[in-house]
Amino acid sequence: MANIGIKDTEFIRGNVPMTKEEIRILSVAKLQLEEDSIVYDIGAGTGSVSIVAALQCVKGTIYAIERNSEGVELIHANKEKFGVTNLQLVEGTAPDCLETLPAPTHVFIGGSGGKLIDIIRTVREKNPKARFVLNAVTLETLGEIQKIREAFPEYEDIEVIQVGVSKSRKLGEYHLMTAENPVYIITLKG
Amino acid sequence: MANIGIKDTEFIRGNVPMTKEEIRILSVAKLQLEEDSIVYDIGAGTGSVSIVAALQCVKGTIYAIERNSEGVELIHANKEKFGVTNLQLVEGTAPDCLETLPAPTHVFIGGSGGKLIDIIRTVREKNPKARFVLNAVTLETLGEIQKIREAFPEYEDIEVIQVGVSKSRKLGEYHLMTAENPVYIITLKG
Amino acid sequence: MANIGIKDTEFIRGNVPMTKEEIRILSVAKLQLEEDSIVYDIGAGTGSVSIVAALQCVKGTIYAIERNSEGVELIHANKEKFGVTNLQLVEGTAPDCLETLPAPTHVFIGGSGGKLIDIIRTVREKNPKARFVLNAVTLETLGEIQKIREAFPEYEDIEVIQVGVSKSRKLGEYHLMTAENPVYIITLKG
Amino acid sequence: MANIGIKDTEFIRGNVPMTKEEIRILSVAKLQLEEDSIVYDIGAGTGSVSIVAALQCVKGTIYAIERNSEGVELIHANKEKFGVTNLQLVEGTAPDCLETLPAPTHVFIGGSGGKLIDIIRTVREKNPKARFVLNAVTLETLGEIQKIREAFPEYEDIEVIQVGVSKSRKLGEYHLMTAENPVYIITLKG
Repeated sequence: MANIGIKDTEFIRGNVPMTKEEIRILSVAKLQLEEDSIVYDIGAGTGSVSIVAALQCVKGTIYAIERNSEGVELIHANKEKFGVTNLQLVEGTAPDCLETLPAPTHVFIGGSGGKLIDIIRTVREKNPKARFVLNAVTLETLGEIQKIREAFPEYEDIEVIQVGVSKSRKLGEYHLMTAENPVYIITLKG
Repeated sequence: MANIGIKDTEFIRGNVPMTKEEIRILSVAKLQLEEDSIVYDIGAGTGSVSIVAALQCVKGTIYAIERNSEGVELIHANKEKFGVTNLQLVEGTAPDCLETLPAPTHVFIGGSGGKLIDIIRTVREKNPKARFVLNAVTLETLGEIQKIREAFPEYEDIEVIQVGVSKSRKLGEYHLMTAENPVYIITLKG
Repeated sequence: MANIGIKDTEFIRGNVPMTKEEIRILSVAKLQLEEDSIVYDIGAGTGSVSIVAALQCVKGTIYAIERNSEGVELIHANKEKFGVTNLQLVEGTAPDCLETLPAPTHVFIGGSGGKLIDIIRTVREKNPKARFVLNAVTLETLGEIQKIREAFPEYEDIEVIQVGVSKSRKLGEYHLMTAENPVYIITLKG
Repeated sequence: MANIGIKDTEFIRGNVPMTKEEIRILSVAKLQLEEDSIVYDIGAGTGSVSIVAALQCVKGTIYAIERNSEGVELIHANKEKFGVTNLQLVEGTAPDCLETLPAPTHVFIGGSGGKLIDIIRTVREKNPKARFVLNAVTLETLGEIQKIREAFPEYEDIEVIQVGVSKSRKLGEYHLMTAENPVYIITLKG
């Protein structure tokens, strides 16, 4: 049984932003992956979501899409560290680089480079039943939810949750509760 | 592959408090269950954590411990609904009713009836390497963390996180962000 | 010295939504009222923000704007209870009912009925230096921030904060931390 | 009218932890100061709470108690910057250094150096009706609430709130919501 609860410290990290443990766990859980799912991880960063998805979908394939070269190297390194073979690295910018890929069943979007609507439209042309899970950390991305509702009225029941996590951190003899930035997790049920 | 992301609405619920979706997902993920784990779910309530754990540990056994009769009935109903056969229902109060059970590898404590230290001690006598995940929603239970540190100095690296979740709820033409009560999730690594 | 920290229970309340204590305190503090300020409280609800502002601005005037008749009655009742004489009740819908009012120095918007941009524009025609504090509890209102940026590039430094408050509530012998819905407080510095 | 809403950037700051704007506003509001209040600010840090209190209590006196020499210098600097004359600086450790001070009507405790119960006891000997507002950011201080309940059953109605604040921060063309650490604000009504 593949563990969904991998710690942040187990991933090789650079200066690339990484989806944090609790947000990664919840995002992958909300994808509701199957053993044979075809997954796009768009804006894959360090590849942490791709790795967890790859460990779940042992008969499927994960496409980690990343345009930043440091990110690409980190995904390579993490793929090797975790020994996953069902993870394909795609260097490029979505939605352009999605054209030649097989249709996905599940799509995680950690970063969209301002092209959220275009990405959703491109994926839907491949598979209108694909399930999306999005992370939003900026007011601008949050504002896109309204545009998604307008552009895709098919999604009647969009789930939007906000998650705030604080962690205790040792400070001398005390334990300080330290906040992580709040993240919105948005689910579009295909 | 068993899905960890079961929705709250899929469980049969009464007036018994239920661990909410996101807290259930994170708590089970932090348990880091194996296929053959022996799990105690103490203060099992509706049995939602037990059900998810049972679906993960297909070669293991889950012991759902609950003293409230309405809870016991709900666990029965949910066990039947999800068709899990590796879930044993134990009606009684921890730690007393734990005596005759096999040693666990993982323990989730959703409610301790004020006996948290006693429960941990009883479990540790059975298996000092058992991993604990606790939920705390009251100031009193939170105050117990300090007592755990004092009573069990073996746990050098106790993880304490607080999770706050808000969900969008339709209100006329608007979507109101609605808060759930914050929950502390505490992990004792055996 | 007028106290800004009035408790929710001190106000006469009906079924009308009320700005909660901590959000009211922070919103009024961020208005940075002066003794002689002219204040609009748009979507005044129970009038709780108007009352606190009236107690601060002893040489100024507060205009409580409310379209809901139950709200209007509550504002009357609270005005009487707190004995404030510098509070004018305006029954009507903003921005229409603002036309005949004196130019404000400070504007609090608790509810805009979907007319946020129009209200800001109308106020700015009266006084382009007016300071605005807005509360947003829906995703739709939050999405308006981007429209404010586009419509009024003069506001270079819009402050957006989100505040989440939990309060301990007695539950038998325990104290449960109970969450209030998160509120965004937005400040436009005139 | 003294403004309670002073921005963090208006205070002279060093490497000393400062009570952040929103927590300072709420804490001072919950003190419910009067014009002639006698206030202790224990663990005064940069003196930001003392300054705001001094501006409110124009006929009262604020005693800023701080043991750290860098803090003492910052309080001096801020006292001068804001031109308040009703602020007395007390270099030392509470409760010892409280002995010779006049009885307070209001006490803010931002840091207690682990002596919370002793400080409350010492103040209560001077004035059993003094109102306390405490900030807690560590699990250990939070655990002290239970000890306060046990040591001082006179406080029947202790208010405990937790406040989480996130602020938008410009990041290129985007606005990232950035979390501040959660703070518990505890009020003991004398």
